[in-house]
This record gives sequence, C-alpha cells and structure tokens, in this order.
Amino acid sequence: MATLGRPRAKGPSRSGLSTEQDILVAAARLFCEAGYSGASTHRIAAEAGISQATMYHYFAGKQDILLRLLLATVRPSVTYALGLAGRDEPADARLWALCAYDVRLLLAGRDNIGSLYLIPEVAGDAFAEFRAEHARLYAVYHDLVAAVLGVPDAAATGLVFGLVESVILRRRAEGEMDADVVAPAIADAVLRVLRVADQRLAAIRAF
Amino acid sequence: MATLGRPRAKGPSRSGLSTEQDILVAAARLFCEAGYSGASTHRIAAEAGISQATMYHYFAGKQDILLRLLLATVRPSVTYALGLAGRDEPADARLWALCAYDVRLLLAGRDNIGSLYLIPEVAGDAFAEFRAEHARLYAVYHDLVAAVLGVPDAAATGLVFGLVESVILRRRAEGEMDADVVAPAIADAVLRVLRVADQRLAAIRAF
Repeated sequence: MATLGRPRAKGPSRSGLSTEQDILVAAARLFCEAGYSGASTHRIAAEAGISQATMYHYFAGKQDILLRLLLATVRPSVTYALGLAGRDEPADARLWALCAYDVRLLLAGRDNIGSLYLIPEVAGDAFAEFRAEHARLYAVYHDLVAAVLGVPDAAATGLVFGLVESVILRRRAEGEMDADVVAPAIADAVLRVLRVADQRLAAIRAF
Repeated sequence: MATLGRPRAKGPSRSGLSTEQDILVAAARLFCEAGYSGASTHRIAAEAGISQATMYHYFAGKQDILLRLLLATVRPSVTYALGLAGRDEPADARLWALCAYDVRLLLAGRDNIGSLYLIPEVAGDAFAEFRAEHARLYAVYHDLVAAVLGVPDAAATGLVFGLVESVILRRRAEGEMDADVVAPAIADAVLRVLRVADQRLAAIRAF
C-alpha cells in the first residue's frame, strides 16, 4: 500500500496516470479500506500525492469524487448496452454479452467500488445522478429480459440484475475473482434462470 | 422514527421487546441509516431509550452489538440447514428450502443488516466469528450443491450463494420486497442455475 505523504506531493505522478485519475484511485482505496465517512479530503490528497488545493481544482469535494467513482461502475455498461442495441444479434445473445461486460466492469480495478452502493450517504440528494444512471441500467436489463421472455417480467429482471451485481458481495467474501471465468459463468447462469436451453446457450457463446 | 431521548430512559420498554432487543433494533437502525462509524454508543443508548450504563450491561460496546446483529443474519440459516440434513428429502429439495429460508432471513426486519457485510470494519479481527459463521453457511451450500450436481463445484456454489445474498443489494435498489414472492423465486432460480428441470422443480415446490 502507498505511504501517506510520499514525495510525489510536489513532483510528477509516479503512477503514469493523470492527476485526476490519481485522485480517483487514491479515494477508491481509502473509501473501501477506511470507509467513506472516515476518509477526509486531506487524506485523499496525501494518498494521491498532491496538495488539497490541487485536489479541489479537479473535484468539488469528497461527494463529487464518490459520485464520479460510482458513475464509472454503471455508465460504461449503459453505453455498451446502447451499442449492442444497434447490432443484429438476438436478444438472448445481447443479454449474455451485457451481463458478461457488466460483471467485468464490477470486477475491474483494485477496489470494490460497488460495495459503496450500500453506504447510507448514497441514498442522499448528492447521489441522485448515480441512482438515476443505475435505474437506467436496470431499465436496459428490463427491456432485454422482456425481449428474451417475450413479455415484460419485473421479477425476472430483479433476479438477473441481482445475479450480475452479486459479484460485489462475492468479491468481498471470496477475495480476488478471475473475471475471465466469472463473467461468462454469470452470463450463462442468467440465461438459465430465464430458461434458455443449454443447446441455445452453446450457440450464444459461439457468437 | 423514534425520537432521541424519549421518556423510556427510566421507564419500561414501550416496544414490548427485551432491553437487549431494544438495543439491537436501535443499533441496526442507526448503523444502516447513519453508518456504523457515525453511530456512537451514546446515540444507540438514547435511541433505545436507556442509559449508556444499561447498554454496557448487555454489550461490551459497539463492535459487540454489530457482531450480534451480523451473526443473526447467518446463524439461523446454519441451524436450519443442520435440521434439514436430518430429514429424508432429496438434496435439491433441501437446497430449495434452505435458499428460501435464507432469503426470508435476509429480508426480515426493518433494516438491511446484510448491507453491513461490506463495511471495512467487518474485515477486522473483531468480526472473525461472523466471517467464520458465514464461511460455515457457505460450506453448507457447497455440500448441498455438490449433492445436487453429483460432484463438488465451487463455481456453482459461488453463483448460488451470490444469488441468495443478492437480495441485500436488491433491497436497497428496489425498496421493500415481498418475501413470500421473492424467497421462492430465488430458490427456483437457484435450481434452474443448477439445470434442475422445470418438471422436477414443480415436484420440489410441492414438498
């Protein structure tokens, strides 16, 4: 783990990342290891190897940093799903691909940012944008599940979305997980929950 | 929501619960609504309508209260599973029953105590007993999944356990969930993930 107050405070980034990325990485680590409420902007800046003034140049504060981190766990999946919608694969193949993509996103990075979904602060006004984006992703799943089943099914969507996001809890209990194994396994499981036959599943995996 | 410092401080419980239960209920609410680190023993006692001295008569401190709350989300399921083991239902029927029981347990109570699994403090020594009990429950699932599939399968166990615990995340995103609907739906989904045929599933639900 990086030491607080390391020399970089006045020098160039040692990580090779932009200053903004250095701040996000440092904050993610502190939020996940020390807790959101326990992480001061002072500590985030020290961990990122910059001054607090520099940090405030990039972010309005701690809430703003957490919001950015949370959005990064859902926005790419929404964008990916919108891209999929323009392709001509059948709905089950698109749902499989989205599940696998989403699981990879939730497993990406050193820190389990999804674990912050559950902190009380995220229920507040400052995180409405995240909750809206999360709801948007849920709506994408809802439409895909409806297309697979031939009928809208909120209960099935809940099962599917829960199975994808379950990696957040599993990451904590099981430790490091291999996304190359877990992402297709969860995508397969999602289609089995929706009663897609194994023969069809084999065809989908071959897309 | 109960008011801080309500008259009960010197009178009998208005909840009809024991003082110990009053403390657990008050602490669960504070931990989930204000965060674990933000909840002082002073505030827990005030919320429970008792003095701090009385609180310390029942619990060694805040950690002790959280440990008790966390254990209450896993121990009953372990006990239930051990009871199931003595019955002569086939493994798939026992797994179905355990999943449904476990989901009901995780959905029980006003507060989503499972959401505290992910806070950094729970990774510490003070919560080793919870993590051991959680691992014990996982082992029970592993054995049942192995009995259903005819072979041990850690990947399948991870999917199953994740699907059951996904209600922790769903409770936050979806709001109040009806356990009578969600518990059997998740138990069904678990068996579908394990490729139990729908005909067999109908027979299991009739047990």
